[in-house]
This record gives sequence, structure tokens and C-alpha cells, in this order.
Amino acid sequence: MIETTIIEKEGVGKLRNPVMVTGLPGIGLVGQVVAKYMIKKLGGKKIADLYSPHFPHQVMMTSKGGIRLLKNKFYLIKLKERDLILVVGDVQAITGDGQYEVAGKMLDYVQKHKVKTIITIGGYSSGKMSGEKKVFAASNNLKTMNRYKDMFVFGETKGSIVGVAGLLPALALIRGIDAMCVMGETHGSYVDPSSAKAVLEKLAKLFSFKIDMEQLEAEAKEREKMIKKIESEIEKQTAGGNKDITYIR
Amino acid sequence: MIETTIIEKEGVGKLRNPVMVTGLPGIGLVGQVVAKYMIKKLGGKKIADLYSPHFPHQVMMTSKGGIRLLKNKFYLIKLKERDLILVVGDVQAITGDGQYEVAGKMLDYVQKHKVKTIITIGGYSSGKMSGEKKVFAASNNLKTMNRYKDMFVFGETKGSIVGVAGLLPALALIRGIDAMCVMGETHGSYVDPSSAKAVLEKLAKLFSFKIDMEQLEAEAKEREKMIKKIESEIEKQTAGGNKDITYIR
Amino acid sequence: MIETTIIEKEGVGKLRNPVMVTGLPGIGLVGQVVAKYMIKKLGGKKIADLYSPHFPHQVMMTSKGGIRLLKNKFYLIKLKERDLILVVGDVQAITGDGQYEVAGKMLDYVQKHKVKTIITIGGYSSGKMSGEKKVFAASNNLKTMNRYKDMFVFGETKGSIVGVAGLLPALALIRGIDAMCVMGETHGSYVDPSSAKAVLEKLAKLFSFKIDMEQLEAEAKEREKMIKKIESEIEKQTAGGNKDITYIR
Amino acid sequence: MIETTIIEKEGVGKLRNPVMVTGLPGIGLVGQVVAKYMIKKLGGKKIADLYSPHFPHQVMMTSKGGIRLLKNKFYLIKLKERDLILVVGDVQAITGDGQYEVAGKMLDYVQKHKVKTIITIGGYSSGKMSGEKKVFAASNNLKTMNRYKDMFVFGETKGSIVGVAGLLPALALIRGIDAMCVMGETHGSYVDPSSAKAVLEKLAKLFSFKIDMEQLEAEAKEREKMIKKIESEIEKQTAGGNKDITYIR
Repeated sequence: MIETTIIEKEGVGKLRNPVMVTGLPGIGLVGQVVAKYMIKKLGGKKIADLYSPHFPHQVMMTSKGGIRLLKNKFYLIKLKERDLILVVGDVQAITGDGQYEVAGKMLDYVQKHKVKTIITIGGYSSGKMSGEKKVFAASNNLKTMNRYKDMFVFGETKGSIVGVAGLLPALALIRGIDAMCVMGETHGSYVDPSSAKAVLEKLAKLFSFKIDMEQLEAEAKEREKMIKKIESEIEKQTAGGNKDITYIR
Repeated sequence: MIETTIIEKEGVGKLRNPVMVTGLPGIGLVGQVVAKYMIKKLGGKKIADLYSPHFPHQVMMTSKGGIRLLKNKFYLIKLKERDLILVVGDVQAITGDGQYEVAGKMLDYVQKHKVKTIITIGGYSSGKMSGEKKVFAASNNLKTMNRYKDMFVFGETKGSIVGVAGLLPALALIRGIDAMCVMGETHGSYVDPSSAKAVLEKLAKLFSFKIDMEQLEAEAKEREKMIKKIESEIEKQTAGGNKDITYIR
Repeated sequence: MIETTIIEKEGVGKLRNPVMVTGLPGIGLVGQVVAKYMIKKLGGKKIADLYSPHFPHQVMMTSKGGIRLLKNKFYLIKLKERDLILVVGDVQAITGDGQYEVAGKMLDYVQKHKVKTIITIGGYSSGKMSGEKKVFAASNNLKTMNRYKDMFVFGETKGSIVGVAGLLPALALIRGIDAMCVMGETHGSYVDPSSAKAVLEKLAKLFSFKIDMEQLEAEAKEREKMIKKIESEIEKQTAGGNKDITYIR
Repeated sequence: MIETTIIEKEGVGKLRNPVMVTGLPGIGLVGQVVAKYMIKKLGGKKIADLYSPHFPHQVMMTSKGGIRLLKNKFYLIKLKERDLILVVGDVQAITGDGQYEVAGKMLDYVQKHKVKTIITIGGYSSGKMSGEKKVFAASNNLKTMNRYKDMFVFGETKGSIVGVAGLLPALALIRGIDAMCVMGETHGSYVDPSSAKAVLEKLAKLFSFKIDMEQLEAEAKEREKMIKKIESEIEKQTAGGNKDITYIR
């Protein structure tokens, strides 16, 4: 294999007003948790696999004795009024130009399905451990920013977005596709189901779908408890130190 | 040379129900020891060389004053009922995308010869120094797993397989070729003829061939003696410490 | 995206006797400061964007909640007798062959516009902190050296020029395009508006344009004051040490 | 520039029974010293330049204020009975696949000129500081080894040859071109004109040419004096230590 390859299953057919939503491994695994939860609860069906020579040159062994390539996967979720193409996966490309190639091939694929909107989901590391998590966003066009300014927090995130969550919307601009990166606020050093929950609530509103949040809420509470414990430990040790400090990097 | 190139000798002709078996440098050199031993004892004949710009940019000097590229080599072993294509070599590709390219070219080549089964041989590092060595396996299809579940241990290995031994079966799946990675249990820090012997016994059964094991058994015994000595040294120093600890990494 | 791509806006039309001038990030940011200042004060209009998979795989978030690729940009400045194509940008390519690719694509683009002269602007690190800054130059042809030997200091710079500022003139030679790298003397560890000012004065003379220097002069004075302070601090600490030593690397 | 490119000057014409001889930067600079000396003393004329995106992305400034790409150069030396194509240059490619690409392009070029013999010159690091220097060789074919076994020392060098000096003969084998790497024995940490002299004497014999060795002999003597001084310093400090030890690595 010398370039990134997407293999679509047979019979995918024509999609209705499709939107691409990505949740690949990244900060706090926010995107991954959201996307996998949606696939599970909304009944996602796999429609394509993406393989890349820019992924690590190793393969996974499964618990049953199977063997498979590292990959990214495209799932189809059929909502009432539109179809969602969800992208999840084991890894992201490990080289810079590999990242550009993978993002480009993903765009080729969803353009074939006439996708006109892309939402990438990521985490934004604010160092905040517990409490309410904001949902930030950045878009590749002004219209989207204006339209969703009451739903997401625009303009409060600084710096750069690394990987597919950033490259997809930025490359989409060149192709005339509206795109937005939605970022759950997170500490950055933990898997964050609580931030994932905050993001998922917004997406449910955005695309008018209902989803059973029970399991994610349970995970979030469990994690929140653990984090609170860590916080109080730190507080004891630093005896009245500044709570705003980011303790763990 | 700008891409991996396989050069076949003239007159290879049509192969009978051929199987590809690879034994490239890897953990414990298990695959390499097995494959080279088979070539020697079963009379392998070289049919092709593989060169790659993704191998290190250095060449070997031979003891007679010769000079040659680093390469992988394809040997033909004619068994009663089928032909085996054995792959051995000096090195594996040093970059990630180089690994994918080499594995892809190997598959192109054996597909040309209508290979329908691939066995890659590797080592699985369990940290075990002496005693009986298990032979693990992982396959790219369920049928193979079921068929050989009494011969190999499936599902006990964890994590990932790095390099050609893993990439070949995983990439073979996409092409519809049945493949299996056979892994001899080994410590991981030593060349392990004892593990190689365990693997070779399984292969002899799998492909119904007879092979004189005397030399490999002698090497295994020699090595076993050395390892036992190291183990007892370690035991003395740690005065009754836990034997299960992996002493050397 | 698998290769460096330049996207030109519509309606650029035919240019009059155009010259390419580059000011990409580099030593002391001299080139960048000069080019951005010219675009601002002489009314540059963007005519093209350059994207590259060899730039870092991250995207910028803007203060308003926008998102965009890292890029290099081409601006058009219309002088009385000729057009200038100015090149500025966020970054340079991060790999060696990426640098060659980007420089090559830039040359392809300006050749399409029949550019026959290229000036790249950079900084030359002499370790000098304050005082008058020389303007060095190196050219890819003897005619240019002779023609401008009274305007720029040729032959006093040693070693090599890293990145686009060097590659463009050197690659231009192969294509028969006259080119020169103009280097403002600078310490190397600071942004240097004072060196930028020295370079800009030369360019104004070279291309016969007038430019309001007030703002750049103010910045240069401000910076100069700061530097003098640092110098006097260092002097105190080293109590009469050799002023010519380069204190900071 | 996206691949290695060789640009030949006009009017090179047909060569008489040409041999390629390379002397690129390497161990002890033995090859470079030999090749440059031959070009100077035997009147080499440049016939082609080789540029590569796999060379470092920086350009050289000349003492007169010029600017030029890093490159490799082909020179033509006309001997009585044959033509020599000498290859010298600033650098070698910095990546592994870049090395393979450059070597491949060089072979393409000399094959166009019907070169049937290739000699690469390198150094072989034996750790020996002073005294007589052996001239080792390794060849890609048995015929050459037998033919020159009285002139060069075959089979005493161990390990691998890194870079173009090794890749060219090894890749030449695939193309059916006879090739040999000639290696001057050298310490490895110094430029070694004395080893270069030993190699050059062999080449003069091999290709039946006369060359004024005076200047190289003077340099060798000068260097030998310096080395002897270092050796006696080391001896004093180690007071009777083993002279065979390689002191500097």
C-alpha cells in the first residue's frame, strides 16, 4: 500500500443530505467518546474503512486471535431528516504530510457522497478538572459562526488545532464545504466523558435527534468522583494553594 | 531506485498450490531461524530478490571482497503436494510507509504466483527464559482460526505485531488471501533456537513435511544451557526473588 | 492534499514587468517585518494562497472563532513602473524536500507571471545588538552583483542561507531568472525592526518607491531602547568585559 | 524541485570507453581528496550538475557574494585511451531513500554515456593514525576481484559501506555494470591526504595515467607530522599504554 485508501462496502447507495462528523483520537478523547457513543446508541452501520501507510506499521491482535490493520472507519447513522457519516478510528497519521493526505482522502470520499457540512469533534485543553464544561467552536466560514453563536462559544479558544479535527475544516474551505470544529472543554490529561456529554447535548440539538444519555452520564459521574478525589488530594498537599493552577500537565 | 523492486530469476515457472512463509528479522529472530533452517534442510532455491530504498542506505561487504545491497529474498521449496515460497532477508524497512510499501510489493508478487495462503513467522515476547515454548497464532479470518485451534494457541497474545509479520496478514485480508501469523514464545532479548524448534515442529505438521531437526535441537540445547546459567546467576543475586519476574528487558 | 498547491484569485490579469519579493519567517524576522510593512503602507492586494502538506499539520484559530490552514500568501503591489509580487506567510516547510517543493512551486507560479527578477529578504546573524545595521546581499549572477555593489554589501557574509530565502535564488539560476538575497544585519535572537528599516530603505531606492517610515522607525527606536538596556545590564554584570562578545545565542 | 535532477552542459558528445569514478564526502574525505586532485592535475572539465531535494535545504554563499545550491558535479577527464567521468560534490543526500534516488539517477546518467565500469572511492576506518596505508577494495563481481587481487586488498574489510560509495556498485550489479569500491585505509577522524595518495597511486596504475603527486605528497607529509605529534602526546599521557588502541573515535 503506497497511499491512503478508502474501501467502501457494497450497497451504500445515495445518502440524504449527509453531514460528516468526525471523532478521532485526540485531546481528552472527547471526539472519540462522542462518536462511538452515537454509533452505539443511534445504531451506526459501518460503510467504509480507511487504511493508510502513514499510520504506524503495526497491526492489532484481537482477543479471539484475530489480526487487523490500524484504520479509521466510516459509519452511517440515519436520522429522520438526514444521514450522518461518522468517522472514528484507532489512530491518526504519524507524519505531517500523512495527516494532510488522510484528511484529503476523507474529503474526496464525503464529497462523492455530496456532503455539504462537516463537524469535527475535539477537546480543548483548558486545564479545568471538574465543574461545567464549555463547548467551544471554530468554523471555516462566517455564516456558520453567526448561525450557531448562541449554541457554541466562538472566539474564546486560542492557538492551533492539531490533526484531522483542524485540517478537515481548514481544507474543506478550499473545496467550498462549510465546516466547524466543535471542542469540548477538558483538562487534557484524562479521558473526559463529562466533556463528551456536554458536546453530545449540543449535537443532539443541532441535528434534532434524541439519544439515551444514561450510560454516558453514569461514566461522567464516575469520572467526576475520581477527579474530585484527585483535586482534594492535591489541595491537601498544597494546603490552601491556588485552585486555579493546572496541577497536572 | 525510487521504489521497492522485486527481481525474479528466469524460469521460475508455474507453482503448485503455493503458500508464502516469511521469516524476516524480528523478536528473538524466531522467524529468521525457522525460515533459514527450512531453506537449508529442505533444499530451498532462490527465485527472487527484493530491494528497497526504504532499507538502510548501506551495503554489505562479504568476506571474499564482494559487495551487495541489503535485501529480502524469496526461496522456493518443493514439497510433495505443494510449493512453499520462503521469504528471508537482512533487514526490514526503516520507515513506516516503507514497511507498507514493502509488504504491498510482496503481496503483489505472491499474488502473481496465485498464493492463497500466507504464514508469517515471528516471536512473541513473554519474558520467559527457559522451559517449554508455546506457539501462538493470530489470523486474518475466522475459518483459519477454527481450523487450527488445536495446533496453535489463539487469543492469548496481546497488543500489536510490528513490521512485515503483522502487516502481511492484515493487508492480505483486503486482497482476500487467508493468512496467519505464527509466533514462537520467547524471552525477547536472545536469539531463541528453542522457540524456533517449537514453531518448526508445528509447520512440519501443518504442511506434512519431514525435516532433520538434529542441528536445531543441538543449538537449542546449547542455548538452553547458557540461559539456565544466567537464570541461576540472577537467582543467586536476588536470593530467592520471584522467578516470574522478567529480569532483562 | 498531497502536494504544495497555489490557488490564485480570479482576475489577477497581466502584470507589468513584475518582480518577486519574499519575506517569510526567518532570522530576526527581518524579511517578514519588511514585507508586511510594505503590504500595509503601499496597499498590497492578495492575489494567491499557497498551501503545503509540508507545513505543520495544524490549523490556526482566529480571535473571532475562525479556522484556517497555515499558508504563504502572494500580494500584489502596483508601483509606478512595475508590479511587485510580495510573498509572506505563517511558516516555512518543516522537511528538507518540502522546502525544495515549496520553492519550486513558487517559481512555477511567478514564471507564469513572467517574473524576471527575484529578491528574497532575510536576516544575517552577526551577533550585533545595537548601532547601525549593514545590508548584505548575495546574488545568483555576476551582473546583479556588479550593478548593485554600491547599494548592498556583497561578499562579507559567510556560510549558508537556510530555507526559501536561499533556495529561491539558487533554484532560480537553473531557470535563468536573476535573483538576489538581501540580508539585514541582526543579532539573531530578537525581532529586529531596526534591521528591517535599513533593508526597506534600500528597497525603496532599488524600486523607486516612497514609503512612510514613521511607524517602523518608532518600533525600531522602541526596540533599540530595550536592547540598549539589556546591553548595559550585561555590561554591569560582566564588569568591563569585552563588548564584542555575542552574549546571547 | 521534487526529484533529483541532473543537468548536462551542451556539447558533451560521445565519450570514449568511459569509466565513472566517484569521490564524494565520506570517511577521512579520502574519495573527495583523490577526485578533486585528479580534476585539478589532469584538467577535468565540468559536464553536468546534479541537484537534489534530498540535499540539505540550504544554499552556499561564495566569497564574492554569489549564491548557489548544494550539488554534486560530473567532470570529464580525457585520458589517452579512455574518458573518465569524475563525480565530486558538497554533500550526500540526508535521507535513506534520498540516497537511493541520487545513486539511481547517477546510474541513469552514466548509462546514457555507456559507462561499463564504475569505481567509487572511499575511506575505510581502521583507526590507524600513521604509517603505510593499505588500499582495500570490494567489488560487485568475481571477475573484477580476480583481475585486481594483486593491486587491491580484497576481503579484509568488514561490515557495511554507507552512502553512495557503497550504493553505486551494489545497484550497478542489478544493471549489469561492473563496479568496485576502492577504500583507502584511514584513522577516520582526520582528513587523510596520505591515504588519498595511496589510493591515487593505484588508480594511476589502473588507468595508466601519469599525475604530478608533489602537492599531495607535501600535504600528506604535513598531516603526517601533525598526527605523529598527537600520537606522541597521547603516548606521554598514557605512559607506555598499548599503542594499538584507537585513541580517538
